[in-house]
Amino acid sequence: MVKIAVLGYGTVGSGVVQVIDDNYNEVATSAGEEIEVKYILDLRDFPGDKHEAQVVHDINIILEDPEVKVICETMGGIEPAFTFEKKALENGKSVCTSNKELVAAHGPELVELAKKNNVTYLFEASVGGGIPVLRTLNTSLKHEKIDAITGILNGTTNYILTKMNKDGADFDTVLKEAQNKGYAERNPEADIEGHDACRKIAILSSLMSGEYVDSNKVYTEGITKISTEDFAYAKALGCSIKLLGRAEKKNGKFFSMVAPFMIPNDNPLASVNDVFNAINVHGNMLGDVMFYGQGAGKEATASAVVGDVIDIVKHDGHISVNMTDKPATLSDCGEYVRRFMVRVALSDKKAAMDVFGSNVDVLSTNEVNDEYAFVTSKMPEKEFAAKTESLGVVKNYIRMYM
Amino acid sequence: MVKIAVLGYGTVGSGVVQVIDDNYNEVATSAGEEIEVKYILDLRDFPGDKHEAQVVHDINIILEDPEVKVICETMGGIEPAFTFEKKALENGKSVCTSNKELVAAHGPELVELAKKNNVTYLFEASVGGGIPVLRTLNTSLKHEKIDAITGILNGTTNYILTKMNKDGADFDTVLKEAQNKGYAERNPEADIEGHDACRKIAILSSLMSGEYVDSNKVYTEGITKISTEDFAYAKALGCSIKLLGRAEKKNGKFFSMVAPFMIPNDNPLASVNDVFNAINVHGNMLGDVMFYGQGAGKEATASAVVGDVIDIVKHDGHISVNMTDKPATLSDCGEYVRRFMVRVALSDKKAAMDVFGSNVDVLSTNEVNDEYAFVTSKMPEKEFAAKTESLGVVKNYIRMYM
Repeated sequence: MVKIAVLGYGTVGSGVVQVIDDNYNEVATSAGEEIEVKYILDLRDFPGDKHEAQVVHDINIILEDPEVKVICETMGGIEPAFTFEKKALENGKSVCTSNKELVAAHGPELVELAKKNNVTYLFEASVGGGIPVLRTLNTSLKHEKIDAITGILNGTTNYILTKMNKDGADFDTVLKEAQNKGYAERNPEADIEGHDACRKIAILSSLMSGEYVDSNKVYTEGITKISTEDFAYAKALGCSIKLLGRAEKKNGKFFSMVAPFMIPNDNPLASVNDVFNAINVHGNMLGDVMFYGQGAGKEATASAVVGDVIDIVKHDGHISVNMTDKPATLSDCGEYVRRFMVRVALSDKKAAMDVFGSNVDVLSTNEVNDEYAFVTSKMPEKEFAAKTESLGVVKNYIRMYM
Repeated sequence: MVKIAVLGYGTVGSGVVQVIDDNYNEVATSAGEEIEVKYILDLRDFPGDKHEAQVVHDINIILEDPEVKVICETMGGIEPAFTFEKKALENGKSVCTSNKELVAAHGPELVELAKKNNVTYLFEASVGGGIPVLRTLNTSLKHEKIDAITGILNGTTNYILTKMNKDGADFDTVLKEAQNKGYAERNPEADIEGHDACRKIAILSSLMSGEYVDSNKVYTEGITKISTEDFAYAKALGCSIKLLGRAEKKNGKFFSMVAPFMIPNDNPLASVNDVFNAINVHGNMLGDVMFYGQGAGKEATASAVVGDVIDIVKHDGHISVNMTDKPATLSDCGEYVRRFMVRVALSDKKAAMDVFGSNVDVLSTNEVNDEYAFVTSKMPEKEFAAKTESLGVVKNYIRMYM
């Protein structure tokens, strides 16, 4: 019998307790031992709750109980989660978490701290909710030379883009609808500006490189500029528009970024719709492997946390995670060479032709008739940025996924 | 340093050696020890090959060498692979294999034999080539109550169906083209009749139930009856036609089968095209998770075999696989309730209406005009079979995926 504690009895935390209740035997079989929740830390009381008796308000009760082997941190946010996790690791308790904000900010440091204390820090649920991609990277694919990870990492923005595409509705209308349905938060900035996806690709980039990729250094664009016209041209191009997080090793460089992309419909990422997430991993021997599933949701995310608990119990607290706190050297995304879809007003066609030349693929669609739209030739991002700046009248542009 | 042996220096076997050569450091990091190929068993010699010196012709050299800890069986076929694997396990050597035919026929028995001898039998590469689905089922998802596994498990048939759909070509034409391109074998029966997919869903069904699902007891239909008219109606229905292997626990019953299905285009399996494979797993907490990738190919399959070797080395030969040789009780697929797409000649419309009643969805497409096609109401498979038999004039039918 292994005793664990859950920090935070909110959505994910109560899900963790539920998974252990509902799948008690399966959890025991998988771990090789029964697993019991000894404490639930929360500021609130939960009178009448089945687990009322386990609720405590003082973290020290948990930290000082030598019976507690594993702590699930499902509070979210940086503090006090960071302090609690550090203390737990220093007290010889393994930690697993769904807290992507904290993992992106301090994950490598916490992995190192765990190593120092002969315990383990795991965070499967911090990327892709229930999708078991981190453990797979750390086990089945660890002998691959991973040269690219590309993901649809945020369900809210994917839902918005899917609805805009299907209904022909504009961004603001769909965002409001998503908020009403509870798919987007009242303050949606972290999602729609790409910050959430940025944290997740930073975590994946760290695992890919084995070093610390600081999410603040990952170039990030959100989806707020995407319009119905962009979707009309996407259709003409045989593409879908997706917000992608992408980490890539290429010619000795290491890129990590988040931005909307035009992605060809025959790429499996193009048909990942609604709130679903997907992560494509490319290895030198394996080629492409894609993982698809719910990127959020109480039970799915909680199941991933419990998967980490089991892994820790099964391996007696000793799992090596490929991550150090040595800062990774990210290459300047301005050096990345690609093509871009560009839209200008018809009145700016001549200026655009002067700047981008005639070596472009001109686009046409019946749905838009007062614009000049085209796909540029290949050029470095910084060259493209300089050109659009000198032109000054671009309605929108979207990167082409190649 | 761990010494291994590779049995069979063909496509997959030479791939295994190549993965260990090319990713030597990554393999060592992942395993925690360097891994060296000490022997390669083959009937042939390979003069001039980099690994010429490792080639032996006598299995006993390998079996009797206590230095050899792991054996990769990449010969394929039942014999002599079965005998070699049994002897290896009895000699205290762990075995991993890509041999789906053997795993489907004797996997549970070999898993039990491995347990008895305190070693491990793994077979990740036997299903979905490089897609790491078996290890994930055995680790990250082991605490889930898995109620359904649905897969596109055969690349050849998926290539044929994709081409028929895109080009509007008939089965025989596309099969010939696939044979010319090397995507289908000269004797394509194992693929097009569904036997290969059947072996793989039997393996997945065994892992799902923890018991032995005999592939001979899995109801199997191939794709040879699928015509261009079926694709016209699929388009009208907003569906793709895919050969699916499906294992499902439902109302206390356990079904396992292989057949072509009409699958709605918004299901991610519908957009798995060409030679790619995909496996969708549904767990009670997790919901749907899908794994996608190359279902075959030298390097991808070999990478999965090497992943097994690493797992065995890392865990010192002790990995528990959820499979026993106790026969599973499969339910009669005749009891499965679903809807069916049915096509008859226009002259048989009245007879079809008499048999299937008016509670059907009639289909129409501009591409076919001398047929009466419809989707039946829900009924058990055996009721449907009785009705089509009594009707006697059905051109084709395809199950609806629900």
